[in-house]
Amino acid sequence: MTSDDPDPDPAPEPTTAWPVGLTTMGFGGDYNPEQWPVETRLEDIELMAEAGVNVVSLAIFSWATLEPREGELDFGWLDDMMDRLHAGGVRVALATATASPPPWLTRRHPEILPQLADGTVLGQGGRQSYAVASPVYREYAAKMAATLAERYGDHPALALWHVDNEIGCHTAHDYSDAAADAFRVWLEARYGDVESLNQAWGTAFWSQRYGSFDDVLPPRTAPTYANPTQQLDFARYSSDQLLSYYTLLRDTLRPITPHVPITTNFMAAGSKWMDYFAWGAEVDVVANDHYTTADDAERHIELAFSADLTRGIARGKGWILMEHSTGAVNWQPRNRAKAPGEMLRNSLQHVARGADAVMFFQWRQSKAGAEKFHSALVPHAGRDSQVWRDAVALGQALKALIPVTGSRVEARTAIVFDYASWWAVELDSHPSVDVTYPERMRALYRELWNRGVAVDFVTPESDLGGYQLILAPTLYLVTDEGAANIAAAAERGASVLITYFSGIVDQNDHIRLGGYPGAFRDLLGVSTDEFFPLLAQESVTLDDGTTADVWTERVRLTSAGAVRTFTDGPMAGGPAVTRNAVGSGAAWYAATRQDAASISWLVGELLAESDVEPVVVTSPGVEVVRRTGADGARFLFVINHTDGVASVPATGTDLLTGTDVQGEVEVAAGGAAVVQEA
Amino acid sequence: MTSDDPDPDPAPEPTTAWPVGLTTMGFGGDYNPEQWPVETRLEDIELMAEAGVNVVSLAIFSWATLEPREGELDFGWLDDMMDRLHAGGVRVALATATASPPPWLTRRHPEILPQLADGTVLGQGGRQSYAVASPVYREYAAKMAATLAERYGDHPALALWHVDNEIGCHTAHDYSDAAADAFRVWLEARYGDVESLNQAWGTAFWSQRYGSFDDVLPPRTAPTYANPTQQLDFARYSSDQLLSYYTLLRDTLRPITPHVPITTNFMAAGSKWMDYFAWGAEVDVVANDHYTTADDAERHIELAFSADLTRGIARGKGWILMEHSTGAVNWQPRNRAKAPGEMLRNSLQHVARGADAVMFFQWRQSKAGAEKFHSALVPHAGRDSQVWRDAVALGQALKALIPVTGSRVEARTAIVFDYASWWAVELDSHPSVDVTYPERMRALYRELWNRGVAVDFVTPESDLGGYQLILAPTLYLVTDEGAANIAAAAERGASVLITYFSGIVDQNDHIRLGGYPGAFRDLLGVSTDEFFPLLAQESVTLDDGTTADVWTERVRLTSAGAVRTFTDGPMAGGPAVTRNAVGSGAAWYAATRQDAASISWLVGELLAESDVEPVVVTSPGVEVVRRTGADGARFLFVINHTDGVASVPATGTDLLTGTDVQGEVEVAAGGAAVVQEA
Amino acid sequence: MTSDDPDPDPAPEPTTAWPVGLTTMGFGGDYNPEQWPVETRLEDIELMAEAGVNVVSLAIFSWATLEPREGELDFGWLDDMMDRLHAGGVRVALATATASPPPWLTRRHPEILPQLADGTVLGQGGRQSYAVASPVYREYAAKMAATLAERYGDHPALALWHVDNEIGCHTAHDYSDAAADAFRVWLEARYGDVESLNQAWGTAFWSQRYGSFDDVLPPRTAPTYANPTQQLDFARYSSDQLLSYYTLLRDTLRPITPHVPITTNFMAAGSKWMDYFAWGAEVDVVANDHYTTADDAERHIELAFSADLTRGIARGKGWILMEHSTGAVNWQPRNRAKAPGEMLRNSLQHVARGADAVMFFQWRQSKAGAEKFHSALVPHAGRDSQVWRDAVALGQALKALIPVTGSRVEARTAIVFDYASWWAVELDSHPSVDVTYPERMRALYRELWNRGVAVDFVTPESDLGGYQLILAPTLYLVTDEGAANIAAAAERGASVLITYFSGIVDQNDHIRLGGYPGAFRDLLGVSTDEFFPLLAQESVTLDDGTTADVWTERVRLTSAGAVRTFTDGPMAGGPAVTRNAVGSGAAWYAATRQDAASISWLVGELLAESDVEPVVVTSPGVEVVRRTGADGARFLFVINHTDGVASVPATGTDLLTGTDVQGEVEVAAGGAAVVQEA
Repeated sequence: MTSDDPDPDPAPEPTTAWPVGLTTMGFGGDYNPEQWPVETRLEDIELMAEAGVNVVSLAIFSWATLEPREGELDFGWLDDMMDRLHAGGVRVALATATASPPPWLTRRHPEILPQLADGTVLGQGGRQSYAVASPVYREYAAKMAATLAERYGDHPALALWHVDNEIGCHTAHDYSDAAADAFRVWLEARYGDVESLNQAWGTAFWSQRYGSFDDVLPPRTAPTYANPTQQLDFARYSSDQLLSYYTLLRDTLRPITPHVPITTNFMAAGSKWMDYFAWGAEVDVVANDHYTTADDAERHIELAFSADLTRGIARGKGWILMEHSTGAVNWQPRNRAKAPGEMLRNSLQHVARGADAVMFFQWRQSKAGAEKFHSALVPHAGRDSQVWRDAVALGQALKALIPVTGSRVEARTAIVFDYASWWAVELDSHPSVDVTYPERMRALYRELWNRGVAVDFVTPESDLGGYQLILAPTLYLVTDEGAANIAAAAERGASVLITYFSGIVDQNDHIRLGGYPGAFRDLLGVSTDEFFPLLAQESVTLDDGTTADVWTERVRLTSAGAVRTFTDGPMAGGPAVTRNAVGSGAAWYAATRQDAASISWLVGELLAESDVEPVVVTSPGVEVVRRTGADGARFLFVINHTDGVASVPATGTDLLTGTDVQGEVEVAAGGAAVVQEA
Repeated sequence: MTSDDPDPDPAPEPTTAWPVGLTTMGFGGDYNPEQWPVETRLEDIELMAEAGVNVVSLAIFSWATLEPREGELDFGWLDDMMDRLHAGGVRVALATATASPPPWLTRRHPEILPQLADGTVLGQGGRQSYAVASPVYREYAAKMAATLAERYGDHPALALWHVDNEIGCHTAHDYSDAAADAFRVWLEARYGDVESLNQAWGTAFWSQRYGSFDDVLPPRTAPTYANPTQQLDFARYSSDQLLSYYTLLRDTLRPITPHVPITTNFMAAGSKWMDYFAWGAEVDVVANDHYTTADDAERHIELAFSADLTRGIARGKGWILMEHSTGAVNWQPRNRAKAPGEMLRNSLQHVARGADAVMFFQWRQSKAGAEKFHSALVPHAGRDSQVWRDAVALGQALKALIPVTGSRVEARTAIVFDYASWWAVELDSHPSVDVTYPERMRALYRELWNRGVAVDFVTPESDLGGYQLILAPTLYLVTDEGAANIAAAAERGASVLITYFSGIVDQNDHIRLGGYPGAFRDLLGVSTDEFFPLLAQESVTLDDGTTADVWTERVRLTSAGAVRTFTDGPMAGGPAVTRNAVGSGAAWYAATRQDAASISWLVGELLAESDVEPVVVTSPGVEVVRRTGADGARFLFVINHTDGVASVPATGTDLLTGTDVQGEVEVAAGGAAVVQEA
Repeated sequence: MTSDDPDPDPAPEPTTAWPVGLTTMGFGGDYNPEQWPVETRLEDIELMAEAGVNVVSLAIFSWATLEPREGELDFGWLDDMMDRLHAGGVRVALATATASPPPWLTRRHPEILPQLADGTVLGQGGRQSYAVASPVYREYAAKMAATLAERYGDHPALALWHVDNEIGCHTAHDYSDAAADAFRVWLEARYGDVESLNQAWGTAFWSQRYGSFDDVLPPRTAPTYANPTQQLDFARYSSDQLLSYYTLLRDTLRPITPHVPITTNFMAAGSKWMDYFAWGAEVDVVANDHYTTADDAERHIELAFSADLTRGIARGKGWILMEHSTGAVNWQPRNRAKAPGEMLRNSLQHVARGADAVMFFQWRQSKAGAEKFHSALVPHAGRDSQVWRDAVALGQALKALIPVTGSRVEARTAIVFDYASWWAVELDSHPSVDVTYPERMRALYRELWNRGVAVDFVTPESDLGGYQLILAPTLYLVTDEGAANIAAAAERGASVLITYFSGIVDQNDHIRLGGYPGAFRDLLGVSTDEFFPLLAQESVTLDDGTTADVWTERVRLTSAGAVRTFTDGPMAGGPAVTRNAVGSGAAWYAATRQDAASISWLVGELLAESDVEPVVVTSPGVEVVRRTGADGARFLFVINHTDGVASVPATGTDLLTGTDVQGEVEVAAGGAAVVQEA
């Protein structure tokens, strides 16, 4: 299976709620009892009850504890914890314990260690020091997974399999010999014969033609730029190879415990290298980890983006927030604790956008190790702390939200997201280093968020039938099928926006000749012959007085009209934003990086033209999302990220307070309401 | 041969025009037909005729296409292209096809791969993944060159051999074991016995004394600063080793095709590591590649510098512009297309300064590979594009300049350029990281360019007899012979300018004791005992109100007088610029990094004192250059880089327009004229 | 022995003056005659006499000269120099000649080369290219040391053994296989059994549990953060391993020359990785190297800090300034010569703070090699130079200071300095990258320096009995014993200051649970549950109008009172500086990074409360230090670093000028006085 395959073999339909048999909003976190003495573990069970925790992830990093020396197994403590948690009413997402191989394994089998492009071996002592392509490692890992499945498959606490952990987090790209072997197998499966690979990679360039698959290598350090299609295929291979490690473990567990759903935790917002749209089809329920960035003043918008993207990966189904934090993390330059109320707001944001569980890394803050300064539900200071009081309050809130479980978010606006395009557009040797992938997407999303407009994330090949407005930013690489799918949406009446440096190449990173933006030239009614990226710190002005930077190009209008033009810069007088009437719809082109005011104008035009309405009328910083149940129940989430009181139209009952809402709900600064609408 | 040998064995006299038998200005570019289907190749021949292209470089990166598996040769497509080009009236600069070894070669012989100083192996997948010192690689490369010579030596299209390509571009320094072996051979040839090496390298320092050549290594990564003379000799060895690879292939081709001139393309402006003054003596005609930098507002001056330096490397003879670009390149951070008229101005600048051919990388823009966003004569957009219209116009202009072919540029001002000094002055552990090599040279050149003064580039040991003004900036390392040569020029009446941190060391990077600037202390009539480089962002003022930065020193006047003094900073009251009367001439010393105003004043003084006149009276930004034919014909190039109309004195005929010029030629903003003077 | 062992086996009592039998202030430098011809060496002896040089370090980098090929020894030149120096009245600090292995040794035994964490081998060609853990290297080095001891042990010039040179300067951390072996031996000695190591390292985290010491490795490059306690123990091991190399050579020399004192030169101010408090116990006399930083406008304060720290390492005893510079060094980005008078002021500062010798790197400036631009007593320009005139003047001054020899500095203020805390607090994955170790210490020291207050540097476990004011900045890691020691000092009446992020972890880098700052929570009467580090460029205001940055935290007052509060920022209204009455003393907490004004206020409060007086009343920039002899003689050093005349109270005789001082000594701008007080 390749990651740009638009139509993978359909996986079993994901479950609609999790964990099987759980009828409440999930609340809990990673639990690492092996780090603590027995007395602390006993206190843990009591505290979980106090806070209302109902699910924990167990044994994620337990391999070296379960098997301290090869073949010497010690399951006593885990048996005990499973029993105690069950007795305490806490369900378990049990891990395969493979997230980090034990020291004895890497010492005895150094060939399982991953390598960087320059040959540097990544050794033990951190985590994830395994080459995912290593047959030796795979055999050991599958054996551990099978052992756990056989031992705990029938345990009443077991609710879910948690395969490995954050697969690909640190070593998404491995250049070892094991990887080279697997890459060749993948390429042979993709291309069949080496001449097809030569065509796809354009190896006539720089004397790179291969006479045999045996001569192909990963894009290891070379004297200069490596072949771009080799790099792109290595990214595809890497995502597929990591996924195949998941499916290996999944398919090891499945026959032993066919009744237990299986997943692994994604890192949707922060990760570039896993094609989660493909991965989403292979898990029984999508689970996601998310962390805010302390120095991002709009981190609540970034969180919403992540949550909506996760819902897209889950094909609109419910999903699990598997990890987030009560306060500071440990891996940013400056790890600040959360502001008052922020943790609750974050949690509600995830639920508003589709999560049916709110979990944390981790239950109890470690006293040793690399993550000891990462916050947890039980902090270093213990129960007499703001963090614990907030945790207990969150438990209460989630109990009040049980009616929300299983409901869905609906949207008429779609943002087109494509991992292969991300990988390809950020390769070297391009017109401008300032053109990066999710950047324009985030700018457009931000404007829609501030306006309270619901957004779905889709792939270029997704069914676009339900959408009136389709935004395709920086879609550098697009398949013929994807381009046709987007054009068809405009034909049948949607408004489509394409931004600069889109449609440039096909799936092999070959230029679509005849004028840019190749794949969208006809749809947009424009043709460009040369790019004029702006220099560092350079900006230009549009004829409405807004500004832009990063990019200009020499746009020739073929059938489109210019809606905005440049008044200065290298393209002074030329088109900056164009619109082309197409069938019953329209196709807009943004040929420069517009500032926030210009984006606001453009999004306003697009919403008006496409008749897309906000969830309710809101103001910037006041987040509004609606979840709708299969039974028609409607839940309006109102989360106030501003310093002032906010009010939006609503009628019903605020589930968080139990108070009646008539016509308008008023939300304090930093507060939130969840109105079950009448 | 060593690169600092001031008097290499004289090579055969370079040809005065190229290619042999070509009687027009050359126009064309790199042509890579193997990247395209047959129908495109047929269109290429037609388009070349339309534009007036008369020469292309062929087979540069064709090894893997010509020999896809070891010993399996496929020359059919190349036979066909040679015939079709000949039929279309296009001559061929045929490459040795060795610029990048095919994958089968690096896979079967990984010992040919180059290595970085830290041991990182540079693998296949880019280009130039070969260790130039590898005997195995040399054997394969020479065999391919011989095969091509035997097959095409008598083909009527063959006009020139293009050996390899941009030799040393990516791996100028190779630290592999093959390189270590070759370095030892080179050292033994240079020093004869190991004790001489010990003396030259100063190995009494830090316990580095060698008992045998066998113990010597390249300057691989060490705990701290490597021996500076070892680093310097490794730079000399590296240039020589790369050159010896060129001469190996040249001497392979020569006996098979004694009638065909041979060259390789230099990168004179951008490369530090090849001593092109030595290389220039080994090619039948100097060929150069040049690319402008998009974010350099004075890139037209940098281009002129490059072209004049190339003429110096060619010992004043005509040369070929082998590569430049129609628009954007792909390897800068932001690759902007050229401004209107810029490509024509660039081309004329090269011709004005001695080029008898204007060629491009490349003929047709690639649709795949690392350089697909590099512009070409035929762009992605095809014929309906500004680039193609400009290409056709350039072809017309070059036809009009046929009379210029073979004429020369003359100058009375020389700038002393020395690669060994560049290598040495930028070594580590020096007084200031802000002292870099061509920096002062470019500042002085800029002032001369703006004044319309013609400049030649020479080495310290060149015949300086024809020059009235000699500028020797940052000549940190100088041989006794070079220093004496410069002093003699002052004695016989020239004005000489030396800038700070010159004359400090001999050819072994040993300090010339007794006071700085050692080699020039007597010539300049000054003596310095300590350096006071300025801190970052620090500047000082001179007594004429101009400013300076980077450098000050405690200058004691022995026989010189102070012309400018510091009014503040660590040397307040001390000399900043001095002048010493010497024989019939004078020697000036600039002991600080003067700002542009101060440089302008200084150059004005030097020109006045030495009676050097501009080509014609001009104004800043209006470039004027004269080429003079053996028959006395004079061609005045006037290139207007400003936003306003320019006019300079001239009488004759503008070859570009055919119009008559009487007394003054008026040139539009961004325009150019080439007046064949009456 | 481990570096955080607070109470190592007591070493033999350091000698009180150096070198044995020397009755004057030492003056001299490193001398490398092997770099010069015989005639220069003869001139050297004459010049040493002219300047009053009485001691030189010899043979530091002479191995390759003494043994150019394995087993071929050539001692003739060294015999000769020892005799000549003796004849000239110059004593010799003779080195073991092991500071850099000769090329033949690294070529024949590449296994002795050190490695970086990523596996990069550090080869020959610089200096110190040896793995200190290599048994092969140790054998060769000890053999050379023994050979020298046997040959020169009875030479009358020999005054001191100089073991190796700046041990650990470039390769403080070696990750080679030899290092891995030695690390395991060290760990087994520290922990006894592997389960104790697992507990200490917290290996339950991330599946890092070891089944055997055999599986443990240095913290080589891993996919992500290495285990922090592994990193900390590797720092401890590395310091101990380097020290054990010193003691190996010391214990080789001792039985052969029991009458000769032995030392090695430290780099106290600039080095993080050697626990010099432990090292200080192993040398017969502490020797230190110090270099000022050209772009540090307060480099004279940094020098004073270094000199006081060196005195702390020497347990208050006299010490040797083994290296500093007459002018510029070669290893900073911009190496500026010293300002007029600066070299003399620097020298006097070291003497004022306890040095009984002033030596330089080096005697004569090299003409070749990596340090040729490093200044020396005899510069490139020779005798006719400012440097030489200053050297002669310094020799005169040091002669005048003979009465000072052997006297001591006394202080009532202590700064707590701990290498293990430095190593631990700067590990990765912490709350803020802006929290670095000596930063707050330097800010506090600066304020005390400007006020003329004498300061001792001590460890947390030192006897604090003599101190009225104790400052413990950034003491992140502290043992139970160290914390109790500091608390006891407050109990008995001292004022104690603790700054933020102190007391957080125990010696294993395990969090002290129950609220921050764990170890000092009770002493300070505060408890913190979450950290709120400030973002880059962010600052906050205190209620006295001063500002702070980098750090805030949520301080809850348990028994302390708030002395300063935040008026804005994330902790607005909360405590910023607190004071807790403790026994007869007080404990202050600074919970943010105060600006200079706030530090000045705080230090003023602390001095007043603790009744600590300055040496004499002075003004900022006018340095005052007193040395007191065993016989009660008092020497007041007054060094004026300002641009104006300074005067401070004093009565007696200025030793530098011989003039009488009555009531007040007046010191010219940039000048100095040393008053033997009446």
